[in-house]
Amino acid sequence: MSIAVIYGSTRENGNTEWLTEEAVSGVPVEKFYLREYNILPIKDERHTNAGFQEVLDDYNHLIGRILMHDVFIFATPVYWYSMSGTMKLFIDRWSQTLRDKNYPDFKESLAKKSAYVIAVGGDKPAIKALPMIQQFQYICDYFGMALEGYVIGKASKPGEIQGDAKAIAAARQLRETLLQHL
Amino acid sequence: MSIAVIYGSTRENGNTEWLTEEAVSGVPVEKFYLREYNILPIKDERHTNAGFQEVLDDYNHLIGRILMHDVFIFATPVYWYSMSGTMKLFIDRWSQTLRDKNYPDFKESLAKKSAYVIAVGGDKPAIKALPMIQQFQYICDYFGMALEGYVIGKASKPGEIQGDAKAIAAARQLRETLLQHL
Amino acid sequence: MSIAVIYGSTRENGNTEWLTEEAVSGVPVEKFYLREYNILPIKDERHTNAGFQEVLDDYNHLIGRILMHDVFIFATPVYWYSMSGTMKLFIDRWSQTLRDKNYPDFKESLAKKSAYVIAVGGDKPAIKALPMIQQFQYICDYFGMALEGYVIGKASKPGEIQGDAKAIAAARQLRETLLQHL
Amino acid sequence: MSIAVIYGSTRENGNTEWLTEEAVSGVPVEKFYLREYNILPIKDERHTNAGFQEVLDDYNHLIGRILMHDVFIFATPVYWYSMSGTMKLFIDRWSQTLRDKNYPDFKESLAKKSAYVIAVGGDKPAIKALPMIQQFQYICDYFGMALEGYVIGKASKPGEIQGDAKAIAAARQLRETLLQHL
Repeated sequence: MSIAVIYGSTRENGNTEWLTEEAVSGVPVEKFYLREYNILPIKDERHTNAGFQEVLDDYNHLIGRILMHDVFIFATPVYWYSMSGTMKLFIDRWSQTLRDKNYPDFKESLAKKSAYVIAVGGDKPAIKALPMIQQFQYICDYFGMALEGYVIGKASKPGEIQGDAKAIAAARQLRETLLQHL
Repeated sequence: MSIAVIYGSTRENGNTEWLTEEAVSGVPVEKFYLREYNILPIKDERHTNAGFQEVLDDYNHLIGRILMHDVFIFATPVYWYSMSGTMKLFIDRWSQTLRDKNYPDFKESLAKKSAYVIAVGGDKPAIKALPMIQQFQYICDYFGMALEGYVIGKASKPGEIQGDAKAIAAARQLRETLLQHL
Repeated sequence: MSIAVIYGSTRENGNTEWLTEEAVSGVPVEKFYLREYNILPIKDERHTNAGFQEVLDDYNHLIGRILMHDVFIFATPVYWYSMSGTMKLFIDRWSQTLRDKNYPDFKESLAKKSAYVIAVGGDKPAIKALPMIQQFQYICDYFGMALEGYVIGKASKPGEIQGDAKAIAAARQLRETLLQHL
Repeated sequence: MSIAVIYGSTRENGNTEWLTEEAVSGVPVEKFYLREYNILPIKDERHTNAGFQEVLDDYNHLIGRILMHDVFIFATPVYWYSMSGTMKLFIDRWSQTLRDKNYPDFKESLAKKSAYVIAVGGDKPAIKALPMIQQFQYICDYFGMALEGYVIGKASKPGEIQGDAKAIAAARQLRETLLQHL
């Protein structure tokens, strides 16, 4: 079992990364920081004659590497009650990969993967991030990918997450689960 | 009462725009097509010493113009069960405007506005777009802005929305409401 | 196509009934007012040796009659952001019917039916009744029953629903749909 | 700080009670098993001339005792993706207490309390019980009561909850929180 951590945060070493580290410390993972890549907004060309045109950014290379893993951990700060725009740009592009001849088995491939979400927000995330969790579930359902769990932390200022005992306990519980499945 | 329609679609004359047109035809509105603007992902610098750095894109000009209106209609296709990345990039940047000295009254200003959402999706949007509606509500709640209503349409291929009698009826109902409040 | 309207309200001729009447006026339906029946809370005996014991109330007779229809319209006031307790008692008992030898095809039978929800609430139901709609969807998903639509009205005092133009338009739209499918 | 555990389960020593016990073992609490009380469905008489009529069941006595506590733990099995009908009957009656001259400060009283939800379901409760959590949040919001947290466990057959390490960890975390606040 091979694990990709997909980071949607826009600052380094923020609360989301700290909490995620609690979940993956000592677990072999490959980390992808989406902010380090140039990912353009999707342009919906599903229904044009020519279909999707090649986009000259880092997405195709990135998705290729991520797909080599069996488990995806989506680690995102909660921006305006949903995933960061940085994360959303990445996921929106999946619509293009679904029609990309270079990835003829994209959907089938995702059906075999499992996913986790780790999210940190500042405004009552235990309640207000739930729609985002439901959206991740719908995304997973679309592909037949199993959403195995999620951890929601509460923090805003740098370091604040270290006071969220509940989230830390949940992250450590997730770590045990990941270690058992290695 | 002055109305801004904020379009998050990435293709021209798509289903979202068609349905929105049902709601605003004959109503004086200013239309903003986010895809025509260069809006970069927010970089979270809330907690750096220097604070947010100026970003050289079209956002600041755009938000200035949008803020001149009293009513916002967010018209977005449903991409992966939430607003388009294009729309999300725009809204994420509000975190920056909240701390922008050029907009000292941003929050108070939004508290006086009202909002509507028009969304079109292909995969059971009457159910699967509801988390997105809840997120728009949370966004509005944050500012004290009134989310006055929403219309959800079902369509995927170009033109398909014209067969969604339920959404068309709701859009026309919204149009009557807008006309009454002019 | 035969339609059962299942009323969960506890007062006669209330807002929920008025709105539902907009949707079914002139449509042949059989109306079931749950308040007129004695339906006891389920007692979870799924895992006892003896299984569910017969309950001497009106439920079994009622479910038998309702099952003779093809379409269920659940018409419920929104009590504390979900269906009325009266409606919930009725639905909870489905767990018993699922194991009732007199209804060996209960699940398969429901899989062939379609459902609508009509709900009226007083406290921002367009947003705060959405979790209830999601629950009805999950219930329908369990059985493979199609949740074809829902109408949410806003009203509290008697008669107030008559001012909710949006809900009335949606109810009339539903009526057209029902008439087309007769 | 005084704690009331309000049980909505209909069988003794079920999974919900077991998980709740993990959260309150060694914590002084008063336990209320709603199934042991006769609580009738509310009859909506808010708008009749005479108002709510006295109901001859156990509710009034029960709510009086529960209100003597500062913290409410709602412990309910997930029946059809929401709280048990037994729990719903209890909460529905709050509409009556809100207008009961014997409880003139009911709303103000609840505003000072805090609440937790412990729920156990069999069908993907980590996702499918979220609408119920949102409903509890809305209920708490109505009164200004703080929903401090929730624990969701997965189990169906008797004893199965003992294998849900994630829920057990969360329940124990809640126990620490409760002990700290005593």
